[in-house]
Formats: sequence, C-alpha cells, structure tokens
Amino acid sequence: MKQFVVIGLGRFGSSVAKTLYKLGYDVLGIDSNEEIVQSLVDSITHAVQADATDENTLKALGVRNFDVGIVSIGDDIQASILVTLILKELGLKYVVAKAQNDLHGKVLYKIGADRVVFPERDMGIRVAHNLVSSNILDYIELSPDFSIVEIQALPEWYDKTLRELDMRGRHGLNVMAIKRDEDVIVSPGAEDFIKKGDILVVVGHNKDIKKLENHV
Amino acid sequence: MKQFVVIGLGRFGSSVAKTLYKLGYDVLGIDSNEEIVQSLVDSITHAVQADATDENTLKALGVRNFDVGIVSIGDDIQASILVTLILKELGLKYVVAKAQNDLHGKVLYKIGADRVVFPERDMGIRVAHNLVSSNILDYIELSPDFSIVEIQALPEWYDKTLRELDMRGRHGLNVMAIKRDEDVIVSPGAEDFIKKGDILVVVGHNKDIKKLENHV
Ligand SMILES: Nc1ncnc2c1ncn2[C@@H]1O[C@H](COP(=O)(O)OP(=O)(O)OP(=O)(O)O)[C@@H](O)[C@H]1O
Ligand SMILES: Nc1ncnc2c1ncn2[C@@H]1O[C@H](COP(=O)(O)OP(=O)(O)OP(=O)(O)O)[C@@H](O)[C@H]1O
Ligand SMILES: [Ca+2]
Ligand SMILES: [Ca+2]
Ligand SMILES: [Ca+2]
Ligand SMILES: [Ca+2]
Repeated sequence: MKQFVVIGLGRFGSSVAKTLYKLGYDVLGIDSNEEIVQSLVDSITHAVQADATDENTLKALGVRNFDVGIVSIGDDIQASILVTLILKELGLKYVVAKAQNDLHGKVLYKIGADRVVFPERDMGIRVAHNLVSSNILDYIELSPDFSIVEIQALPEWYDKTLRELDMRGRHGLNVMAIKRDEDVIVSPGAEDFIKKGDILVVVGHNKDIKKLENHV
Repeated sequence: MKQFVVIGLGRFGSSVAKTLYKLGYDVLGIDSNEEIVQSLVDSITHAVQADATDENTLKALGVRNFDVGIVSIGDDIQASILVTLILKELGLKYVVAKAQNDLHGKVLYKIGADRVVFPERDMGIRVAHNLVSSNILDYIELSPDFSIVEIQALPEWYDKTLRELDMRGRHGLNVMAIKRDEDVIVSPGAEDFIKKGDILVVVGHNKDIKKLENHV
C-alpha cells in the first residue's frame, strides 16, 4: 500500500490528505501552522507541525520512506521549490507540486517534480465553461474534437423515446446513460423515454455539443 | 449575450475571467490590487482597480447591468460575504461565490448566493483519486454508485477484442469509447480490438471500477 506525505495543509493540501486517508491510505501531513495541524489530527494518520524547508526535520520525520509526496505550499513560492527539491533528493519516487503560475510550474518541473498541478486555474476553467452552458453539468474532454458531457434534458425531449428523438442522427450525439433521481440507466435502448429532470450523459463532437449549449 | 463581472482576480478568479473572455463574453474584472489589475488588462474586456466592498463604487461601475457575478475573494471572508450581498441587492440574477470552508459556504447561500464553489477542495479530491489509481485518468460521478472513468488499457487487454475480454460480463463495465492517439472510437463494437496505449472510457458501478484501480 502506497504511503503519502502531504506538505502544506491549506485548502488544497488538506483536501488531498483527507481524501487519501478516507480511501484507506497512510497519510502524514506537515504544516508550519499549529492551528491547521490541530484541526486535522483526526482526519489523517499523522499531522505534524514543522517547517518543511528544514531538511533535517524531514529526515527525522522519516519522509524518505514515503512513496509519494504532495507539495501544496502556496504563497511562499521559494519554500514550495525548496521542499520539492528536498523530497526528490531524499529519494521519493513521485512528487506532485502545486504551482501558483506558469513560471513557478516550469521551475518545479526543472528541479524534478513528477507532476505539477494548478488547482485554482483548472477549476476556474471548469467553472467558466459551466457558467456559459448552464445545461452542461460536467464534462470529460476525450480529444480536441470529442467530449463526454452531462446535459440537462431539454423540455422538448420530455416523454419522447430515444428513437423518436434520433439523438445520433439529428444531434450527432450518443446517449451513454440517463440519470434519473438516484438511478442510472446505463446504455439506454431506443425505446427508453426521457423524463423531466433527466440528466443525459452523451458523447459527441464538440461542435455538436456546442449547438446544444447555444440552444439554451 | 450574457455579461460577467468577476470580483477578486486571484488564481481562481482570473482563470474564470480569462476563460469567459476567450469564450467570447464581455468580462469586467475588479480587484483591489493594482498590480493584478494591470496584468489582466489585455486578457479581459475591462480590468478595474477598486475595493468591491464599497457599494457606491460598484454602482458607479454599472455592475447592476451585469447578468452574472463571480465573487472570488479568498482570505478576506468578510469582504467575500459583503460583496456577495451587495451584488444580490443590486439585482444580479446569478451570483457564484467561492468559499473557503463549509461555514463560509453556508453563510454565502444564506445571503443569496446562487451557487457556492470550493475550487481547492474539489481539485484536492480529484487529484487524490487520481494519485491512488494511476490508471484512472478522469472521471464523472453519475451517482453515489455509478461513475464514468477514463482508464488506461491494461497490458493483458492488448490485441484482444471487446468480445474476448467480455468487459461487461467479467468486469461489469460498459465500454463507451476508445481513445487511440488523436482518434476516438465512439460506441465500439464487439469485434473492436484494444491496442497498447489505448484509453477506454467506461461506465460502471463504483465497486467494479474500484477493482480495476486495485488491480494495478
Ligand atoms: N515552510 C513551510 N513548511 C510547512 N508548511 C508551510 C510552509 N510554508 C507554508 N506552509 C503551509 O502551506 C499551507 C498552504 O499555503 P498557502 O495558504 O500560502 O497556500 P494557498 O495556495 O493559499 O493554499 P490553498 O489555496 O490550498 O488554501 C499553509 O497552511 C501554510 O501554513
Ligand atoms: N475588497 C476587495 N475588493 C476587491 N478585490 C479584493 C478585495 N479583497 C480581496 N480582493 C482580491 O481578491 C483576490 C483573491 O483573494 P485571495 O488571494 O485572498 O484569495 P485566494 O483564495 O488565495 O485566491 P486564489 O486561491 O484563487 O489565488 C486577490 O487578488 C485580492 O486582491
Ligand atoms: Ca492560503
Ligand atoms: Ca487558493
Ligand atoms: Ca491569494
Ligand atoms: Ca491563498
């Protein structure tokens, strides 16, 4: 079982740490802020107050025995870089680091981060897409041309079968699932009806999906 | 065409603002930090330096004429609440506010926010799931029980047809699409082969998906 060390327990870091712990993994969390550490003692395996830029402290905490490190220090860019460097030097196989901006991200890769994440930026992009197409609830980009989207059923679809609606022929969309309250109809058949409140999971060309966005 | 005002242009707010602008919408951005405002003048319609907790300033900027407000002030929770309240009082139809924690989120809803987002928390959850199941690349939660996931093809699947693999019977999974380089095979047939490097988009019960995670 992989062991994780999360350094910097802000909103992003603490969410990563708590989720990993809930999934059943060992998680050591380190933050310089005692209050934050106290608030997490029951939500992860170990929460320790320490300045992670001090290599000897990290050694003393046995950080070298962990498989994966997550560096989620934010505003102190220098500390984020230094800690990432130390973790790689200590021999951690996989280090994920949170970056504030492109330049920070490039530096993190250069000093050995295996993955750099931009949580605020990525979520900003998701929320913006979501705002302009209020009927599109979630999406996975399959390629520059294809996506899977969750879409609110349009009123004109209510009480019609998929055959009548001819989603593939008329809209270029394949319906992969229908969410109805707590149920999910996987691979619905041509005779399945769309009901008010249904959420359809469809796959299609972005240009065909775009048409539905503008439709609303 | 909807018009957007984004208040607080940190990493999340600026990402929302820039993405909306790129999608072709009018975006007014407001931040109290002059440096941040300057860095965005070419990336959105208007960028203005102002303290958004001042109602008269927001009135003078014509904020009441906007359709959607995004409040992405972070650390100053009081300011975030006050600005959200002012936007609703000015009559904006839809206000999205970024929350720091659950309590902040509850207050935002209570004073009229139409949607509350937790970007760091949500992204933390995504990244954690991703870390423990390196073969699961992206996912949509359809219900507490069902998800769609993008999954790296396992070596033992290479050069076998979907019929041979019997994904539905043996793994409980429906293959909805196969990504191969730049191509996407939508609704693959029983005689389609899995190749090395393929990414499968499958829908299934979380417990069946979980088995694949642990498999790797
Ligand atoms: N040298 C350090 N050693 C340990 N922890 C640190 C160090 N420097 C900063 N931290 C901690 O990292 C955490 C995240 O940092 P900060 O709040 O600046 O980032 P952020 O990007 O605003 O975070 P988020 O948006 O995820 O809340 C804080 O809890 C802070 O106490
Ligand atoms: N009263 C205010 N009026 C206008 N802008 C404000 C006000 N208070 C804070 N801001 C701006 O809001 C932006 C976001 O605030 P802050 O940096 O505290 O949030 P954050 O959660 O760390 O942001 P992110 O994680 O998205 O970078 C900052 O650029 C800040 O200057
Ligand atoms: Ca912070
Ligand atoms: Ca943040
Ligand atoms: Ca900030
Ligand atoms: Ca911050």
